[in-house]
Amino acid sequence: MHHHFEPAVYHNAIGAHPPVLRVASGDRLTTTTVDAWGLDAGRRQAAKRGNPMTGPFFVEGAEPDDVLAVTIESIVPSRVYGFTKTAVAPAIVDPSYVAQLPPIETVEWAIDTAAGTVTLVAPKPASLPELVLPLEPMLGCFGVAPPRGQSISTATSGEWGGNMDYRQFGPGATVYFPVFEPGALFHLGDAHAIQGDGEICGNGVEVSTTTTVRFEVIKGWKIQWPRFEREIDGERWFGTVGNARPLDQAVQHATTEMLRWLGEPAIGFDPLAANLFLQQAVRYDLGNVFDPAYTMVCRLASRVLAGTGRGRSGAVRPS
Amino acid sequence: MHHHFEPAVYHNAIGAHPPVLRVASGDRLTTTTVDAWGLDAGRRQAAKRGNPMTGPFFVEGAEPDDVLAVTIESIVPSRVYGFTKTAVAPAIVDPSYVAQLPPIETVEWAIDTAAGTVTLVAPKPASLPELVLPLEPMLGCFGVAPPRGQSISTATSGEWGGNMDYRQFGPGATVYFPVFEPGALFHLGDAHAIQGDGEICGNGVEVSTTTTVRFEVIKGWKIQWPRFEREIDGERWFGTVGNARPLDQAVQHATTEMLRWLGEPAIGFDPLAANLFLQQAVRYDLGNVFDPAYTMVCRLASRVLAGTGRGRSGAVRPS
Amino acid sequence: MHHHFEPAVYHNAIGAHPPVLRVASGDRLTTTTVDAWGLDAGRRQAAKRGNPMTGPFFVEGAEPDDVLAVTIESIVPSRVYGFTKTAVAPAIVDPSYVAQLPPIETVEWAIDTAAGTVTLVAPKPASLPELVLPLEPMLGCFGVAPPRGQSISTATSGEWGGNMDYRQFGPGATVYFPVFEPGALFHLGDAHAIQGDGEICGNGVEVSTTTTVRFEVIKGWKIQWPRFEREIDGERWFGTVGNARPLDQAVQHATTEMLRWLGEPAIGFDPLAANLFLQQAVRYDLGNVFDPAYTMVCRLASRVLAGTGRGRSGAVRPS
Amino acid sequence: MHHHFEPAVYHNAIGAHPPVLRVASGDRLTTTTVDAWGLDAGRRQAAKRGNPMTGPFFVEGAEPDDVLAVTIESIVPSRVYGFTKTAVAPAIVDPSYVAQLPPIETVEWAIDTAAGTVTLVAPKPASLPELVLPLEPMLGCFGVAPPRGQSISTATSGEWGGNMDYRQFGPGATVYFPVFEPGALFHLGDAHAIQGDGEICGNGVEVSTTTTVRFEVIKGWKIQWPRFEREIDGERWFGTVGNARPLDQAVQHATTEMLRWLGEPAIGFDPLAANLFLQQAVRYDLGNVFDPAYTMVCRLASRVLAGTGRGRSGAVRPS
Repeated sequence: MHHHFEPAVYHNAIGAHPPVLRVASGDRLTTTTVDAWGLDAGRRQAAKRGNPMTGPFFVEGAEPDDVLAVTIESIVPSRVYGFTKTAVAPAIVDPSYVAQLPPIETVEWAIDTAAGTVTLVAPKPASLPELVLPLEPMLGCFGVAPPRGQSISTATSGEWGGNMDYRQFGPGATVYFPVFEPGALFHLGDAHAIQGDGEICGNGVEVSTTTTVRFEVIKGWKIQWPRFEREIDGERWFGTVGNARPLDQAVQHATTEMLRWLGEPAIGFDPLAANLFLQQAVRYDLGNVFDPAYTMVCRLASRVLAGTGRGRSGAVRPS
Repeated sequence: MHHHFEPAVYHNAIGAHPPVLRVASGDRLTTTTVDAWGLDAGRRQAAKRGNPMTGPFFVEGAEPDDVLAVTIESIVPSRVYGFTKTAVAPAIVDPSYVAQLPPIETVEWAIDTAAGTVTLVAPKPASLPELVLPLEPMLGCFGVAPPRGQSISTATSGEWGGNMDYRQFGPGATVYFPVFEPGALFHLGDAHAIQGDGEICGNGVEVSTTTTVRFEVIKGWKIQWPRFEREIDGERWFGTVGNARPLDQAVQHATTEMLRWLGEPAIGFDPLAANLFLQQAVRYDLGNVFDPAYTMVCRLASRVLAGTGRGRSGAVRPS
Repeated sequence: MHHHFEPAVYHNAIGAHPPVLRVASGDRLTTTTVDAWGLDAGRRQAAKRGNPMTGPFFVEGAEPDDVLAVTIESIVPSRVYGFTKTAVAPAIVDPSYVAQLPPIETVEWAIDTAAGTVTLVAPKPASLPELVLPLEPMLGCFGVAPPRGQSISTATSGEWGGNMDYRQFGPGATVYFPVFEPGALFHLGDAHAIQGDGEICGNGVEVSTTTTVRFEVIKGWKIQWPRFEREIDGERWFGTVGNARPLDQAVQHATTEMLRWLGEPAIGFDPLAANLFLQQAVRYDLGNVFDPAYTMVCRLASRVLAGTGRGRSGAVRPS
Repeated sequence: MHHHFEPAVYHNAIGAHPPVLRVASGDRLTTTTVDAWGLDAGRRQAAKRGNPMTGPFFVEGAEPDDVLAVTIESIVPSRVYGFTKTAVAPAIVDPSYVAQLPPIETVEWAIDTAAGTVTLVAPKPASLPELVLPLEPMLGCFGVAPPRGQSISTATSGEWGGNMDYRQFGPGATVYFPVFEPGALFHLGDAHAIQGDGEICGNGVEVSTTTTVRFEVIKGWKIQWPRFEREIDGERWFGTVGNARPLDQAVQHATTEMLRWLGEPAIGFDPLAANLFLQQAVRYDLGNVFDPAYTMVCRLASRVLAGTGRGRSGAVRPS
């Protein structure tokens, strides 16, 4: 079934809020998202600033210790402009350099979905007369209700997902979340027309969207951190996400989750094999380094796994 | 001039040791390196374990506050086998997971330079009957004598380079080092036949090599951290390297150095332009997360820079 | 007014739960707390494991941007035994040492309130036949509802307080919390009969208690992190609490909050004076290093402040 | 024997420099130190800025894997003035607060050894007319030649000691260093007339001194990090020092070294006993948080140890 949903309420924390819609495993959902500042397709302040979420969506059959798989089918900007801020975050330059950052102001970008471009509009410094970047839409913040009855700000991230700001969470990605509450309670928002690694100014090009996702409940797959599969640079990868601070701890979470994954029945490595396979084949990507929790991604190429005779021709999830 | 040098002495710390050879700016050098454990092409213990360095090489004309550019022209394994260790480092998994790592033993890999492969030989677990990876040689540890008369272990890294273990420091890379001592005093070694991001087991596939580099002294270019240019995934990039711990601080060093670079005459952005350009175009890569100092790389595509009309068709260094 | 309250419900997350009692500024409250594992005075499982909180208490007149001052008047263990665990946390030893930690088991201690001692009962290794420590009761976890409608696990801490595990939060301490929700919504629990710095095994000697606190609403005092005043080692101190990870960031939060405090009207230093005063007089204490967020305290002696003629004879809060 | 030594050469890196004097185990040494900026008792620039060291002193009989015990007998300022800087370090406040720090200038303090005071001289802001602190002299930077032939800047610290800036390293402290080079090669300098925890502005009150230490070689005591014994607040403590960054790692080093210590023959706890003893009795102190490596101290009261019947009435070192 394909649901179309128009939100009337938004949440600035991810938690066990009353569901706005019930969907079944296998269903598609097309909905709108406002931008990180709460501005909608008409630039109206539709929600409170700070990554307001559309949702939560109750996915029938999702129980704690299951997995909710969310495949992002499309993210279409619903405006021809987006916003960022001028300056890189003080926390990601040397403390002695902070005073040399420019003042923080709003930056406006033009989004051309036909041309597939994102173009700097203003402010436009004399030394940077033209800056045209590719349109690469993605979701900055999305996830499921966290464990232990918590309701946690969309400024941060954790085992439940949240504000991960990982560039590869765009169309084509399937993201796996551990389920903590009945129905999983999926939230989404904070879309970016493009984003550099790290979201180092605190923004991708913030934009409202019409977004389509597909839900699937995978019973009895116990995971501890978000995982994903998607094509990157022309081939298929599978990866794990660690959210924590400092980045060293995010690396620990993502690496540990990957070692656990390699040992699950779908792949079937013993601990030694998992360590041997990971050590020379692994790649890491940087997600958010702006917010309270930072994000680090650990990923492996499905092709390399398939070359070992494991991962049933690249399959890495329970059949 | 093209020098051919066969080392008789090795250093396990990078410092102002007596130079083994004097070379001129523009010269090529072909020399051999032993592996990280001090084993040479014949598996003889030619040097003390722990990233023994060939060198140092005195580059004529290099003075403090100049830059030494080192272009890696080729790295050819001089053996058909290399070594790693079985287990991922305890520091890069969750503390509660450490007890589940396999015991640390030596792993042997076969290197086939003709086929361009690196193949797991032993131990070979039942669940991993075959693991063939591409030969992607690189230098794990290289650099110049550090500032302030220091002599610093090749286990770590800093402004002078050192044990950065960055996968992209292979043939084709030009690496720029700040010069702290007359002659720069260049050291090199710790080559890997292949390495995953992070060098997470403490090793790439450790191998002895015959390596060729080209030196160039760039006068009056003051940089604070290693920088580089190279092709990655089919296009040209320029990048900066931050070495520190935690990774958050390595990100700070690399990002700050990149903002400084964007503001230099060769590129010519004012601070606002530099911040605007960097924020949505930046990529980060992970180097070493095994040793005392961790490594993070910040990079930008030359093509994107050229699109702004800056970087004189992609050129980013003083002309 | 002096309220006596016996809880029937407990919360494992601090948030805007329905208040269990309304109190006025100036009121005293005597209530009971269960231990960190949810065990009450009779060792019954009265609440879910994981720092269950008594409360929340609605303090009349407390509005966002006010301060709630909570003076701990007494903490009396309501049992003659308490619990810890055997092993220091894996995260606070070197990763390479983790495998040498003993297995995690429950440790029992005897609490003698008359003698003022806490004595190891079991397990009692041959090499440690007797261990008697002083009874120094304190609250490990307490605070007010966090901002932004969040509800956050009592395993962690933040601007709202939470699981700070600071040894000096015992009888005699006045703790100042920023108010984020109407009524402040104060929670308390996780008392310890004694605790070492850092709560390095994840426990102080966990005990149920009868605890008495006094509330005061301070209007129009805007603070960003918990602050406190109390006697330590025979003299009066005032301090700030930073909760974050790594500890470096907790140091940043606590130090920044102290610089802000020194600049408030009650003290009245200009920025230069605040920096000069702080630099040679400051002390730091370590709170929790077990949980997701770590705690660092920055404190100054009231006597030293009074010696400058500031702090109206040591007073540091709005009059 | 009691040596009197007047230095003519200073080192800004700690390493295997030629010894300036040979002393025997049991000998006393009285020597002078210049301040952190290289200024001597007459304010002459006697050495290069940056913690110039007096030494190294070769202690006869000290071999790798021994311990060099250095007892600080006295530190007497040789000037009536000392220096700090105005502003707290950018790295120890929130990145968003850095711009509010005052400009960095030199601060002058008056040292009165008779009165035992350190008094702010200039700049003296209107809001801080008087600031008088106690004279509490200490050594900021001292240690032995590091392992592996390294020579490492006195800006940082490690297993060899170095720039630890721990307030308790004053008269009465006995500091134990692992020996890495024959003769240990002891360096000292960077004395402070007083210092706050953390050395948060990058300086204690920097002063030149006449300092007296006593050396003792302890054969066959293998330690991995500096340790110490001294009286603090009226009773005897023994402690370990971890130097690293972030502080979390310094905590790991210091805690691990203390667990090892508790298991040595002089104390004799089995691992379970060591963990049980440490968990509720431990104290942590903050050393340097200004320089590349941060310092954390783990300490225990000798009285508490003696109460267990261990530590031969408080003795914690090999007899």
